[in-house]
Amino acid sequence: MAMSRSLHACERLSVPALRQLLRDTDTLLFDCDGVVWRGADALPGAAATLNALLRTPGKRVFFLTNNSSATRRGHADKLRRLGVRLPGGDEPQRSVYGTAHCAPLFLLQQQQEQQQQEQQEQQQQRPYKVYLIGSEAMASALEEAGIPFVGGPGPEVDLGWPPEKPELDPDVRAVLLGFDRHFSYAKMVRAVAYLRDPACAFVATNTDTCLPLEGDRVIPGTGSLLAALECASQRKAAIVGKPSEFMFECVLRAEKVARERCLMVGDRLDTDILMGTQCGLPTLLVLTGVSTLAEAQACRDSSDHERHQLAPTYVIDSIADLLPAIDEL
Amino acid sequence: MAMSRSLHACERLSVPALRQLLRDTDTLLFDCDGVVWRGADALPGAAATLNALLRTPGKRVFFLTNNSSATRRGHADKLRRLGVRLPGGDEPQRSVYGTAHCAPLFLLQQQQEQQQQEQQEQQQQRPYKVYLIGSEAMASALEEAGIPFVGGPGPEVDLGWPPEKPELDPDVRAVLLGFDRHFSYAKMVRAVAYLRDPACAFVATNTDTCLPLEGDRVIPGTGSLLAALECASQRKAAIVGKPSEFMFECVLRAEKVARERCLMVGDRLDTDILMGTQCGLPTLLVLTGVSTLAEAQACRDSSDHERHQLAPTYVIDSIADLLPAIDEL
Repeated sequence: MAMSRSLHACERLSVPALRQLLRDTDTLLFDCDGVVWRGADALPGAAATLNALLRTPGKRVFFLTNNSSATRRGHADKLRRLGVRLPGGDEPQRSVYGTAHCAPLFLLQQQQEQQQQEQQEQQQQRPYKVYLIGSEAMASALEEAGIPFVGGPGPEVDLGWPPEKPELDPDVRAVLLGFDRHFSYAKMVRAVAYLRDPACAFVATNTDTCLPLEGDRVIPGTGSLLAALECASQRKAAIVGKPSEFMFECVLRAEKVARERCLMVGDRLDTDILMGTQCGLPTLLVLTGVSTLAEAQACRDSSDHERHQLAPTYVIDSIADLLPAIDEL
Repeated sequence: MAMSRSLHACERLSVPALRQLLRDTDTLLFDCDGVVWRGADALPGAAATLNALLRTPGKRVFFLTNNSSATRRGHADKLRRLGVRLPGGDEPQRSVYGTAHCAPLFLLQQQQEQQQQEQQEQQQQRPYKVYLIGSEAMASALEEAGIPFVGGPGPEVDLGWPPEKPELDPDVRAVLLGFDRHFSYAKMVRAVAYLRDPACAFVATNTDTCLPLEGDRVIPGTGSLLAALECASQRKAAIVGKPSEFMFECVLRAEKVARERCLMVGDRLDTDILMGTQCGLPTLLVLTGVSTLAEAQACRDSSDHERHQLAPTYVIDSIADLLPAIDEL
């Protein structure tokens, strides 16, 4: 890999340069929304490109998505439906790292740390439950991980006015927020009541402010629900998804992957590219989603260190541009 | 008035100094929550103090509250229930300026400005409607002001998943957000769809992050609902309530009040005191609510201009401390 190059060069790549980049890369990490699909539809050439990569010996592909509305299996089914021939036979979901899957791993790690501290302090071990604001997918991911929860998908019981004191489960030690189309004031009242205890952890899947749908529709994302809870509780949540490094750590723990031969591909500077940067990976921006070339170049040219971190190493128009380079590998 | 003194001195007042302050003051503007009451209960001595002021010739009292859950009449009824003998006979609500009352005045002003511009540009005058996220009280205040609205109190219809495109009323030209215990994702989807049109105004009653109830309970306030909408729409709302000067302007328009002989009394630095400061009024902090003496003094001693603006002119423990000074006027 051209390691002498800046990680934030925003370099437009010719086919020969792309081919060299792919030769230097074993593992490609792809964001989904704005890279592989938009809403229900695949982006042009996405399936053909991914299939060509998956056919190439020595190349591995993983999908890292902040979308918490589907399980790993749900995301894998969608990829297959869009024509991507995922490896793994009966377990195609092993290629997918979504926040619904990673949030329980984050909580288990936190739970272990709490239990170790309780052991050290010779305290009795307390049960560990979660108050969940999130989707069916998050509920089943928690169940699969063996983490009991209260709350969960569907509407919350109205507490009347002025709101009755909600009955709090004394075993709840974390509030977990993901995307929830039944998000409501009643859920906020409960979450804030749990979060008044500083020992109760506060974890959210991601900070994306909105979700782009087909056409030019945009609906509020988890980040806007999180803004309400952070404001009401006057606390900041720990974030599972990109730009946090945690999702990449999940890949490293589960798979034999050479960190120095990974490439992060995404459409958002503030999530995908920043995660890559924070993990020390070269990054490749595609222009089929949220961020524009002008935004990327403005970050590259910024003297502000934090902003400069958002600039990608490389830029291509869409992942379809990889196809000719793969064919010549 | 001791005008040579800094407006941000945080001065603790003795009874003689309080007496002099009251002699220099004709109109006292009181916040309610944390000053006159907390939740359903009056604060000790509040009713006796207010009644003594109201009995004193030449003294006038107005109540400025960010709480949008009650109409003027509702707040006036509560004050009377707590023992405050409001003037105005059959119209005790004339002493009360709440955000449910002031928000329609704010919208009417905005509507007039839009219509003047349309006239100048010889455009056809468009109808003016509001998408309301708010309480029954806000709905009746809009009705009273003759402003038609859609949305309003009660739950919003669920749009399914992925959410159907909501049917938008083409006459809606402003989104108005107040406190709404039925706040939900479905309401956010609609509000954000209206707000994608940059010509649609965005107005909120207030930014208080939480509402203190009796005991030490705290529930999410309008500010946390606003945080969600501002994040999802990537826009900032215009604010009707304190610290905006608009509520004080509403008093000045409706009543013959000498601006230079007003005093603002409140418990919050970032709303009550800041509004007083921005209106050029001396301010009196009471310590029966949200802000503490230490916070006030830290603002007074801050070299940061914005923070210094939050420091009150005077500090007393509670409005009951005014009573001996009133008795000796």
